Amino acid sequence: MKKQLGPSDAIFPVPAALIVSGTDEDANIITLAWVGIASSTPPTIGISIRQSRYSLELIRNTGEFSVNFPDASIFKEVDYCGITTGRRRNKFKDTGFTPLASKKIKSPIIKECPYNIECRVSQEIIIGDYVHILGEILESHVDGDKADKSKRAGFDLLKINPLVYFAEAREYWTVGEKLGYGFSAGKAIKEKSKNR
Amino acid sequence: MKKQLGPSDAIFPVPAALIVSGTDEDANIITLAWVGIASSTPPTIGISIRQSRYSLELIRNTGEFSVNFPDASIFKEVDYCGITTGRRRNKFKDTGFTPLASKKIKSPIIKECPYNIECRVSQEIIIGDYVHILGEILESHVDGDKADKSKRAGFDLLKINPLVYFAEAREYWTVGEKLGYGFSAGKAIKEKSKNR
Repeated sequence: MKKQLGPSDAIFPVPAALIVSGTDEDANIITLAWVGIASSTPPTIGISIRQSRYSLELIRNTGEFSVNFPDASIFKEVDYCGITTGRRRNKFKDTGFTPLASKKIKSPIIKECPYNIECRVSQEIIIGDYVHILGEILESHVDGDKADKSKRAGFDLLKINPLVYFAEAREYWTVGEKLGYGFSAGKAIKEKSKNR
Repeated sequence: MKKQLGPSDAIFPVPAALIVSGTDEDANIITLAWVGIASSTPPTIGISIRQSRYSLELIRNTGEFSVNFPDASIFKEVDYCGITTGRRRNKFKDTGFTPLASKKIKSPIIKECPYNIECRVSQEIIIGDYVHILGEILESHVDGDKADKSKRAGFDLLKINPLVYFAEAREYWTVGEKLGYGFSAGKAIKEKSKNR
């Protein structure tokens, strides 16, 4: 039996991604769970941010932002960037994170995050108290020691130890074991179905 | 040192969510990784789907869809629904999934998925080969034996065993261990920073 919980924004899993806005002088970090791919062609990300947040002002100033994907080892710093406002604190200094120059945008990326993307705003949609920002992905970066040409994504997830978040439950998790491969695990059912 | 991988749609983790479109008569399932929350007020989800997919026609017919979040035990069925077209196959029959009537929309939910949401399309944005569909979340459902009023989300993630996907790597994973809590894990840094 199903139990109804009403309208809810609980979905899982989601990233706990660090969005960097601003320039070298005023770079700020915000943690967002409302992050998803909006298109593969051209690669476009959708992030959603409360209208009241300082990062929104900075993103609107430059029309650019980076999204930085943390590993599990820095989940406390990730959480800190979500519960502190950049209006009053320098979160790079407070966390010890290192800003690195991006290749195609003015906002830096975060060295301590193993995977990073550079984005340029292509569209803004206001939904209630939130702004849904679509950003074209212009460049991506991975730590050199985690890069692996033999992997489809160009890097080895096992070496990254990704951080997994469950927003509504407010829980940070690691990943466990690999179950199988996409575009492959379902083939047995496909074969069986053909003969049905 | 960072290595550049070019523009890419690799982000992690993402859900491997089962979107049900159509009505009792023509209900279809598609697996999508491009799923994220677009707003919390009102709760709104963003899903992105290739313009050529059959599910897009069905969603446009009714303006409604459900999103069903699988547990790790059914990852093969999840994969099957991503590599098969509903133009030629009945994926409910092929997977053995059971359609259950929704409360507020015409598209059914999937019984075998522990968590389900009902959505009504509020906006459509075309981005290259994809359509980014925003859907207001009208209702959510959890398996009765996984509901837990003491949990913030209204259910116990440990009982759900969520499926985690890494789209660009095409890998299905389980979750591992809980590291800590959001809006809490970062408090020690906050205290330390105050005195800096």
